[in-house]
Amino acid sequence: MSTIADVAARAGVSKATASRALSGRGYVSDDTRARVAHAARELSYVAHSSATSLATGRTQTVGVVMPPVDRWFFAELLAGIQESLFALDYDLSLYGVPERSQTRERLLENVLPGRRFDGIIAVGIQPSARELERLQRTGRPLVSVGPYSDGSSAVSIDDTAAARIATEHLIELGHTDIAFVGGSGDGTEQSFGDARRLAGYNDAMRAAALAAHARIVGAAPTMPGGFTATAGLLGDRRSRPTAIVGVCDEAAIGAIIAARRLGIAVPTELSVVGIDDHEHADMFALTTIGQSPREQGHEAVRLLMQRIDRPDAPLDHLAAASALVVRNSTAPPR
Amino acid sequence: MSTIADVAARAGVSKATASRALSGRGYVSDDTRARVAHAARELSYVAHSSATSLATGRTQTVGVVMPPVDRWFFAELLAGIQESLFALDYDLSLYGVPERSQTRERLLENVLPGRRFDGIIAVGIQPSARELERLQRTGRPLVSVGPYSDGSSAVSIDDTAAARIATEHLIELGHTDIAFVGGSGDGTEQSFGDARRLAGYNDAMRAAALAAHARIVGAAPTMPGGFTATAGLLGDRRSRPTAIVGVCDEAAIGAIIAARRLGIAVPTELSVVGIDDHEHADMFALTTIGQSPREQGHEAVRLLMQRIDRPDAPLDHLAAASALVVRNSTAPPR
Repeated sequence: MSTIADVAARAGVSKATASRALSGRGYVSDDTRARVAHAARELSYVAHSSATSLATGRTQTVGVVMPPVDRWFFAELLAGIQESLFALDYDLSLYGVPERSQTRERLLENVLPGRRFDGIIAVGIQPSARELERLQRTGRPLVSVGPYSDGSSAVSIDDTAAARIATEHLIELGHTDIAFVGGSGDGTEQSFGDARRLAGYNDAMRAAALAAHARIVGAAPTMPGGFTATAGLLGDRRSRPTAIVGVCDEAAIGAIIAARRLGIAVPTELSVVGIDDHEHADMFALTTIGQSPREQGHEAVRLLMQRIDRPDAPLDHLAAASALVVRNSTAPPR
Repeated sequence: MSTIADVAARAGVSKATASRALSGRGYVSDDTRARVAHAARELSYVAHSSATSLATGRTQTVGVVMPPVDRWFFAELLAGIQESLFALDYDLSLYGVPERSQTRERLLENVLPGRRFDGIIAVGIQPSARELERLQRTGRPLVSVGPYSDGSSAVSIDDTAAARIATEHLIELGHTDIAFVGGSGDGTEQSFGDARRLAGYNDAMRAAALAAHARIVGAAPTMPGGFTATAGLLGDRRSRPTAIVGVCDEAAIGAIIAARRLGIAVPTELSVVGIDDHEHADMFALTTIGQSPREQGHEAVRLLMQRIDRPDAPLDHLAAASALVVRNSTAPPR
């Protein structure tokens, strides 16, 4: 089998340059990259193989446990994890299994313990099933993404603060009748992060002596969820709030669409604020709390690689940035 | 290491039943499943491990090559592939890399040839870069999802027919001024499947002697893409079409949102039809051509397993179902 040294010699460059050119990490001129790629092709060089992994004892594979990627946050996060792992020449073994399912139970009990990963990234873990503790029992380096991270290194935004800032923005504009769209009203258990956001809303209302005005309207954290809940909320003119905090941008966008369908102008008759800065937020001129799940994916891989290199290093909790992005869906009440 | 026989004996069931209970395949009563799971836990049984894979020469891993999962179609398809692979106790190694990128080039030239998969599923392959041919050179069993499948087993809908049926639906309602939203007007190369859809629109217009009325409005196949293109198209009342075919539901939903913003009633003043039956289609009462990417994921795994078992079996092309779903976004012109 050809080695990186063979490729470097054939291309007339140093081993370090050949490695940079093939890995995509670091700067290499286009010309050099093409020459190295050509040499690698001629020699049928492959960047890592089972031989490498036998030599190092590493699998060059990271297991990623997350819900099925049917929402923007998960899709962006997965893209970020993928980008970083690919740049490091690591494979991504995906376990996208539904929360609270029999499949998930089987994953934790029977599947993951038998897999040979260098580490695991776990996303959106719920405390109820003690999932994180069970993942830790596999003995692999672990990083969690999301607010629940008992005993693991973790990356997340401060969901409580995000919702508090969103609500305070409306209060500062003069709103007092502010509804939260996105509790667990539909009977399904809400995620740990969404529960934190609800707590942040309640904190802000309480701090402004508006606790008596607090209203939580149950809605799934999706566009149709926000749409349906808001259509019901806005139907009765007498009990209509002047402002809405969506548990996430999808729910907030659903609220805007519902308002438009009912002929209620945003923001003059109804202010709406979301959390996330979803890819569609700009199209709906949505004021929101921005976060970058893609960067959180990069950070999760960075933390995991540190733990793989030094399994006994202290745990590291990284608070990702989130900040108010004011667009045109919020205004003072009439 | 415990074997399945140990687990079966401990649980007091047959080996076949224990296997069914642990794999999730086939019927097992809840009580039996719980008993087997308990026995497996007590014995620290793991369903497969590197030992298994050394014994069989199989990696129990399938490589999945697709664009980053930022659209409904890819997310649903990935969920379907994941479900089927997980049920078969196969791991999913994800390569979600952007089309026409340097990363993609590296994946095909340097990464995949070195990986030990039992098979590969390739999604949304573009003919231009001869990607499918290069994937075939890795020598692994291969199934492609999408319309381009030169020399591989494949699963796809007939994109040409889907767009033709969508356009014919508008023609049958009496429309003659029908625009197609979703060509490559923004300068980026459109996907092979989207080009097929445009061809289907042109076929239908030509067959109805409406070729002179055909109008293609360039738009990315996304909600903001359809929104922006349609807002431009509808701005001038004199040149406004009476109907729109969206290249996909996302573009069609963007068109509906743009129409509402401009005070144009759907369907009385403007009919809109999409292709996909996206999860949000119902919320926008969108008439569309339905398809199930999740089922296509199941079928892709089924075809791949056949090829893994019999690599020399004849290629199999599976045309997935697609049918008109009439909702409330289409009506005769005024």
